[in-house]
Amino acid sequence: MIYFDNSATTRCSDGALKIMQEALQVNFGNPSSLHNMGYKGKDYLKTSREIIAGILKCQPKEIYFTSGGTEGNNLAIKGGVEARKRLGNHIITTKIEHASVLNPVKALEKQGFDVTYLGTDEYGVIDLEELKAAIRPDTIFVSIMMVNNEIGSLQPIEEAAKIIKAANPEIIFHVDAIQAFGKMNIIPKKMGMDILTVSGHKIHGPKGSGFIYIKDKVRVVPQILGGGHENGMRSGTENVPAIAALGVVSKEAYDNLEASRKHMYEMKFRLIEGLTAIDGVTVNGHHDENSAPQIVSVSIKGNRTRAQVMLNALQDTYGIYVSAGSACSSNKPAISETLKSIGLEKDLLERTIRFSFCPENTMEEIEEAIKAMTELVPMMVL
Amino acid sequence: MIYFDNSATTRCSDGALKIMQEALQVNFGNPSSLHNMGYKGKDYLKTSREIIAGILKCQPKEIYFTSGGTEGNNLAIKGGVEARKRLGNHIITTKIEHASVLNPVKALEKQGFDVTYLGTDEYGVIDLEELKAAIRPDTIFVSIMMVNNEIGSLQPIEEAAKIIKAANPEIIFHVDAIQAFGKMNIIPKKMGMDILTVSGHKIHGPKGSGFIYIKDKVRVVPQILGGGHENGMRSGTENVPAIAALGVVSKEAYDNLEASRKHMYEMKFRLIEGLTAIDGVTVNGHHDENSAPQIVSVSIKGNRTRAQVMLNALQDTYGIYVSAGSACSSNKPAISETLKSIGLEKDLLERTIRFSFCPENTMEEIEEAIKAMTELVPMMVL
Repeated sequence: MIYFDNSATTRCSDGALKIMQEALQVNFGNPSSLHNMGYKGKDYLKTSREIIAGILKCQPKEIYFTSGGTEGNNLAIKGGVEARKRLGNHIITTKIEHASVLNPVKALEKQGFDVTYLGTDEYGVIDLEELKAAIRPDTIFVSIMMVNNEIGSLQPIEEAAKIIKAANPEIIFHVDAIQAFGKMNIIPKKMGMDILTVSGHKIHGPKGSGFIYIKDKVRVVPQILGGGHENGMRSGTENVPAIAALGVVSKEAYDNLEASRKHMYEMKFRLIEGLTAIDGVTVNGHHDENSAPQIVSVSIKGNRTRAQVMLNALQDTYGIYVSAGSACSSNKPAISETLKSIGLEKDLLERTIRFSFCPENTMEEIEEAIKAMTELVPMMVL
Repeated sequence: MIYFDNSATTRCSDGALKIMQEALQVNFGNPSSLHNMGYKGKDYLKTSREIIAGILKCQPKEIYFTSGGTEGNNLAIKGGVEARKRLGNHIITTKIEHASVLNPVKALEKQGFDVTYLGTDEYGVIDLEELKAAIRPDTIFVSIMMVNNEIGSLQPIEEAAKIIKAANPEIIFHVDAIQAFGKMNIIPKKMGMDILTVSGHKIHGPKGSGFIYIKDKVRVVPQILGGGHENGMRSGTENVPAIAALGVVSKEAYDNLEASRKHMYEMKFRLIEGLTAIDGVTVNGHHDENSAPQIVSVSIKGNRTRAQVMLNALQDTYGIYVSAGSACSSNKPAISETLKSIGLEKDLLERTIRFSFCPENTMEEIEEAIKAMTELVPMMVL
């Protein structure tokens, strides 16, 4: 099997599994229990929080563990907007956000908030002038993703933050970094972010793990209430094994960041080179380091090149696993707003597949994928 | 170590760990991915949903997986109330609910809902006449826990349901069954429940697992929005390993239910017998099968019998782990509303510890606990 669906989810790392086993069966105490088993549970939380704070160069208390990226984005958006609804009524986001950003924003829109959805250029990148023009005196919240999950486009987060904060430092800037964390250096304070969302299972951690960074003194209204865990921001017995594993995989990702990035860019560039040589194939987004290292989105002109057909053929004939769309929308292959936003011709919207890498993928696998596509596409185009 | 803090959390079972390993590293696909790895992920969800539906004698589609009990209670209460806020403004619950029920209810109260908090008798049981009298024409939601987490009192759920539905079948009846599931037979349809909340880590499943039963056609507004997972009720990539494990431990618990209940009641009755023979010791709640099998709450008169002191002495001298309060409130040993509600004298509120069992505990451990307390208490009373 060649697994190129790492932006959907990844295999849990051995280091993550090891610490989970320990936290599930040996040091399994409830961190709220006031005995040694509880204290050991608490230690895992402290260690992971410190690892992540070290990576983001922030304070440990600015990290709050969640059950994953979707919960994190909901908390950021609903909780962030609720905290400053008296200051204004306007939200800015982009057309190419993940459903876990777009749907909470749409729910707020239904409640009466005004929303501006920024478009993108043909590479999936927002226009900073459009952002600047969209900011109003009543703008309270801006949410822009760092790496797009479908085509890997990178947004100019740091420049966006400067524009937002220059217009009004009270506006909260939220960044969905789910596809960026573990792939890029992220220093929220330096880059001007107020809230950042991360998921664990995209970087070889377990599903059900994640965290949200909330800058000190930025107010967010908690969405899950109860025993006051995570400093009141997210109640519920902490998922100690998952949090411990999240610390491990975060460290693994950032200890090897430069080497992994280099390796993934090499794979990406070679895959793009191999695929663009095939008649009818287009690679979406930037082809260079202006896009993320782990995602290659490919559209294929032809009669039999619908994504699901291509995906099945790659799997059944070549053992290659790719994604039709983003695999984030629970089996509903809706038309992609990202692909519409880059102006992909209508016919290709359903003819687009995604290859997504992890550092463990190899150049040999890339060559096999190129070989497979070079054989397969001419048969499907007709 | 003798671990008597199983109502705080439990050791993950071997069967649960085994299936988690498989779902973390072998069949690790995203259930939304439209390839074989995704389908294998989906299979775990289907299997667990069917196991649980079999136990509750409900339809699989009435089961929605969550990240745990606290999220489940928040979804039930906020989502259930939001769905019928046009029908009325009144909520009924009890004074002895868990913080994950009380705090969402208090948040709704702040938003303008009227709330009636039912009291209990000296055994921690609500009065059905009080419930009946509390129901108003504008009552829309009732939430009553099945087993109290601090003293193990059982509420007359089935009779409460009859009273509620007789008054107005449109009222939604939510039951927090977090300490009941795996310990009692629960048939929501027969017992008249509309929504039921369960957590996995109380029954040897992993932390971060849980489900909510929502009766077919009962409307609940989703609280975490995104890709539309769990039939739109709870977005976010499904925590496949935890859900698979939840199925395994649910089956383990219910395959052995009668034997486990018998064993735990034997342990409970012997512990009560041994402890009540000690001067200054009172066991709270009913001492018979009118209370849950796994919880024994003990108050100790004396100068040096504060819960934390007793807990430390039991741990350090005897290797016995118990709980001070309920261990659900993130290290804040607040005064227990449950203990106040049963009319415990003020002095004893901070002098109460909880022994909580799992089926793996043994009668030998109970004898050791009795021996320990028989030695320890006289030294602490003075």
